[in-house]
Amino acid sequence: MINPFFKNYGPFKIKDLFNDIDTDNPNILGDDTILDIRDLVTSNNNHLTFFHSKKYQREATVTKASYCVTSKNLIEYLPKSCKAIYVDNVLLTISKVTSKFYPESINDNFDNTVKKINEIKLENNVLHGHNVLVGENVKIGNNCSIGHNTIVEKNVIIGSNCSIGSNVIIRNTIVEDNVTILDGCVIGKKGFGFFPNNQKNLRYPHIGIVYIGKNSEIGSGTTIDRGSMSNTVIGQNTFLDNQIHVAHNNKIGNNCIIAGQVGFAGSSTLGNNVMIGGQAGISGHLKIGSNVQIGGGSGVIKDIPDNSKVMGYPSKNLRQFLEENK
Amino acid sequence: MINPFFKNYGPFKIKDLFNDIDTDNPNILGDDTILDIRDLVTSNNNHLTFFHSKKYQREATVTKASYCVTSKNLIEYLPKSCKAIYVDNVLLTISKVTSKFYPESINDNFDNTVKKINEIKLENNVLHGHNVLVGENVKIGNNCSIGHNTIVEKNVIIGSNCSIGSNVIIRNTIVEDNVTILDGCVIGKKGFGFFPNNQKNLRYPHIGIVYIGKNSEIGSGTTIDRGSMSNTVIGQNTFLDNQIHVAHNNKIGNNCIIAGQVGFAGSSTLGNNVMIGGQAGISGHLKIGSNVQIGGGSGVIKDIPDNSKVMGYPSKNLRQFLEENK
Amino acid sequence: MINPFFKNYGPFKIKDLFNDIDTDNPNILGDDTILDIRDLVTSNNNHLTFFHSKKYQREATVTKASYCVTSKNLIEYLPKSCKAIYVDNVLLTISKVTSKFYPESINDNFDNTVKKINEIKLENNVLHGHNVLVGENVKIGNNCSIGHNTIVEKNVIIGSNCSIGSNVIIRNTIVEDNVTILDGCVIGKKGFGFFPNNQKNLRYPHIGIVYIGKNSEIGSGTTIDRGSMSNTVIGQNTFLDNQIHVAHNNKIGNNCIIAGQVGFAGSSTLGNNVMIGGQAGISGHLKIGSNVQIGGGSGVIKDIPDNSKVMGYPSKNLRQFLEENK
Repeated sequence: MINPFFKNYGPFKIKDLFNDIDTDNPNILGDDTILDIRDLVTSNNNHLTFFHSKKYQREATVTKASYCVTSKNLIEYLPKSCKAIYVDNVLLTISKVTSKFYPESINDNFDNTVKKINEIKLENNVLHGHNVLVGENVKIGNNCSIGHNTIVEKNVIIGSNCSIGSNVIIRNTIVEDNVTILDGCVIGKKGFGFFPNNQKNLRYPHIGIVYIGKNSEIGSGTTIDRGSMSNTVIGQNTFLDNQIHVAHNNKIGNNCIIAGQVGFAGSSTLGNNVMIGGQAGISGHLKIGSNVQIGGGSGVIKDIPDNSKVMGYPSKNLRQFLEENK
Repeated sequence: MINPFFKNYGPFKIKDLFNDIDTDNPNILGDDTILDIRDLVTSNNNHLTFFHSKKYQREATVTKASYCVTSKNLIEYLPKSCKAIYVDNVLLTISKVTSKFYPESINDNFDNTVKKINEIKLENNVLHGHNVLVGENVKIGNNCSIGHNTIVEKNVIIGSNCSIGSNVIIRNTIVEDNVTILDGCVIGKKGFGFFPNNQKNLRYPHIGIVYIGKNSEIGSGTTIDRGSMSNTVIGQNTFLDNQIHVAHNNKIGNNCIIAGQVGFAGSSTLGNNVMIGGQAGISGHLKIGSNVQIGGGSGVIKDIPDNSKVMGYPSKNLRQFLEENK
Repeated sequence: MINPFFKNYGPFKIKDLFNDIDTDNPNILGDDTILDIRDLVTSNNNHLTFFHSKKYQREATVTKASYCVTSKNLIEYLPKSCKAIYVDNVLLTISKVTSKFYPESINDNFDNTVKKINEIKLENNVLHGHNVLVGENVKIGNNCSIGHNTIVEKNVIIGSNCSIGSNVIIRNTIVEDNVTILDGCVIGKKGFGFFPNNQKNLRYPHIGIVYIGKNSEIGSGTTIDRGSMSNTVIGQNTFLDNQIHVAHNNKIGNNCIIAGQVGFAGSSTLGNNVMIGGQAGISGHLKIGSNVQIGGGSGVIKDIPDNSKVMGYPSKNLRQFLEENK
C-alpha cells in the first residue's frame, strides 16, 4: 500500500487509459478493467505495472500484474499472464497513466483545505502555538505539541508524543510516535522528478508518501520529498541534523546519524546504524549497507557494503583516503 | 533598464555627487547634470559610469557615458566624450555614489508597507492562503495561487498561472507566467556584497532585481539574491531543486536542471540546457556554456565551454575524472 | 557565566545527584552540597566538573571544583582538593547530571510562553511586522525592527539598532548592537548532540547560548545552534551569507567573512579576519587561526595556523592545491 492519501480515480478500461498515448501494439487494448497502477512486485490481477530496465528482470518474471508497460526488448522476461504494452518511453508513458489514476499527485499548490487548529475538532488535545493550520484527512496522536505558524497540510498522520516545531510545513506524511521535527522543515512535497521538455518540463506524478519511524528526529530547515512510485522512508530512532535534503524514494534505515547539510539525490537505500558526516552527498539509486560510516564532505557514487568506512570525493576506503592525504 | 523598482533620487550635479569623496582631479567636477548611474554598456549622455578592470576595456572604449569613475592607469581606454574621475578605489566610490541615487537599495529591513491580502485591491483574483501579506507596487496576474504566511513584499510583478507556496518571502522580483515557487524560498534580498571594514563593513548597494523566466520552478528553501549593478536571472523552463543558493548577478539560461543544494557564488553566466548535479558549487565570475553537464559535488572554478561534461573538485573533463577515480 | 537563561534547579547533595547512576566509588558520595555543574576552568568550590580526555590534563591539574566525574586512568591529574568520581562513560554521566540541574535545556518544544508583540509591554518601541511573537525573559534595545511572523522565543536579549527579518526563530541568544539577521534563520536551538542508544538516542543537554557580536550580519536561512556546555559565538562585524549551518560550541572571531552554504561541525574555534568560500566545511574540534583564507568547497579536517591560505578536500596549502590542479 503505497498511496494511502491520494484518491484513486480508477477503475479504468485499459483502452481508455491509453486513448491518447502511442503504443506499438494498440490491438491489445480492450475493455479489461484496471484497478490501479503498481510496481512489479506489489501488482496483482487487474493492475497495470511497468518495466523499464533489465535491472528489474527478476521482479518482472514473477509479476502478477495483468498488463505491463515496457519496451520491446524486455518482453521476454514477463510471464504469460501479463500482457505487454510496448512504448518508446516507458517512464513517460507511465507518468501519463499515473496522472489519470492520481491527478492530485501532480499539483502541489498550497493546501486550501486547511483551517485554524482551534476551529476544527481533533480526536486528541494538541498543545499548539499561534496560527497553526491543519488540513483535511489529518490525525494527530496523544500528547503532541505543534509550534507557531506550522501548517499540517492534508494527508498527514502524526503519532503520539511528537514535538513539531514552528514554521514547519508537512503533507502526505506518516509520522510515528515520539518523533521530533524541528523548526522550518518542509516535509512531503513532490520530488524533483520530471521529463525535460523544451517548452515546459512534464512533471512526474508523486504518489508516494514520506514515512518517519518512531523515536526519530529531523533537524531545522531540513527538506524531505515524498516518493514518486514508492515511499521516502526515515527509519526508527534515526536522527537528522539541520539543512539536510532527502530527495524522493530514499529509504534510510534505523539508528542512523546524519549530520548537517547532507544531501540524498534520490532512490537510494541505506541500512541500519549508518553514520554520515556533514555535507556528504549520496548519489541516486545506490545501496548503502548497515553499519557504514561515511566521512564528512564525501561524495558517494557507488554502492557500499556493510560495515565499511569510506571518505572522499568520490568516496573510497577511509584508510586509503587518509593514507593518500597524509 | 536594470532598476524598475528602486526610486532614483537624481538628477544630481556631478560636483554634489562627489562632495564627500576624495578624487585625484576634483577640478573637473562642476555643475553638469547626472541623471543616473549605469554600467559602461547601458550608459548614455548625462550618465555616470565606472570602469575598474582592464577586462572591460572593450566596453570602455565605446561607452556613451558623460563621466566615468576609474583609476589613472585605465583612462587611456575611455573615449574623449567621457570625462574620467580618478579615485583610489573605484568600486568603493561607485558604491557611495550609487547609494545617493538609490538609498533604498541598501536597507533590506522587513517591508512595513505590506497589508493583508484581503484588505487590498488587486487587479486579479488570487487564490490565497491564510495570513498572506502584500506590499506596495505589487502586480499579480490571472489564476495565481499564493500559500499561507507568504509575504510578497514591495516591488514584485508576478505573471499569470503562477503557484507560490507557503512561507515564501519575495521582493524586488519579476516572475513570468507559469512559474512555480515552492515553500520557504527567500527571493530578491540583497546579495552578500560589501566592502570589508574593521569596525563595520560597508554594504554595497544592490539596485538589481531577480528575474524568473516563464515555466520555471524553484524548489523549497531556495534563496535567490537580487543583483548589485545588474540583475540575477533564472531562464525559462529552468528547474531548481530544494535548498539551492543563487547569489547576486548570476545569469542562468533556459531549460537548465539544477539539483538540490547547489550553490552559485555570484556573477556567473550559464548557457541553456545546463544540468548540474546535487551539491555542486559554481565560483564567481565564470562563463559556463550551453549543453554543459556538471556532476554532483563538483567545484567549478574555471570557465566551461559549450557541450562539455565535467566533474570533480576542481572540476575537470568527466571522462578524465572517472578514469582517475576508477 | 555560561547559562544566563536556564534555571538552575540546584543546589543538590552530591549523593542525590548520583542516586541513579553507577559509579566505581559510591562511598565518596555523601551530603556535600553542589551548587552547579561547570567545566574544569570555570569551576569553583562546591561545583561539580568533568574530565574525559587527556587533552584537558593541563586544565584538570588546576581545577577548583570540589568533585569531578572522570575515568580511573585520569585521576592522577586532578588536584587533591578535587574528589574524583569514577564512571565508565564520563560524558553520558555528566549528561544525566546536567539534566538534573537544567531540565529545561533538553526540551526544545516550541515556546508556548510567547505572546503577540502588541499585547506585551517592552521597554523600547520596536518597529515590527504582522504576527510577531515574543516570549518570556526577552529584552529588545532601541531602534530595532522585527519582520513578519518572526518568533523571538524566551531567553533572548537583543541590542540597539538591530534589524531582524521575517520568519526568523530565535531563542537562548544574546544579540549585540547593530546586528542584522535576515529572513528565515533559526538561531539558538539545541545542537545535534546525543548519546546513541538503540531504542531511543539520549539527548545531551545544551545549557549554552548563542552570542552574536555587534555589527554582524546573518544571512537568510542560516541555522546557528546553541552550545552544550559552552556557548556558540559569532564575533563582531562578522558577516555570514545564506544557508550556513553553525553547529554547537563553535566560536567564530571578529571581522570574518563566510560565504553561502558553509558548514561548521561543532566545537571549532576561528580567529579574526577569517575568510571562507562557499560550501566549505569545517570539521569539529579544530583551531583555525586569524587571517586565514579557506577556499570555496574546502573540507578542513586539521588545525590551520594564522595567516594561512588553504583549499581542497582535505584542505592543503592553497599554492600546492593550485599547483596540483593546474
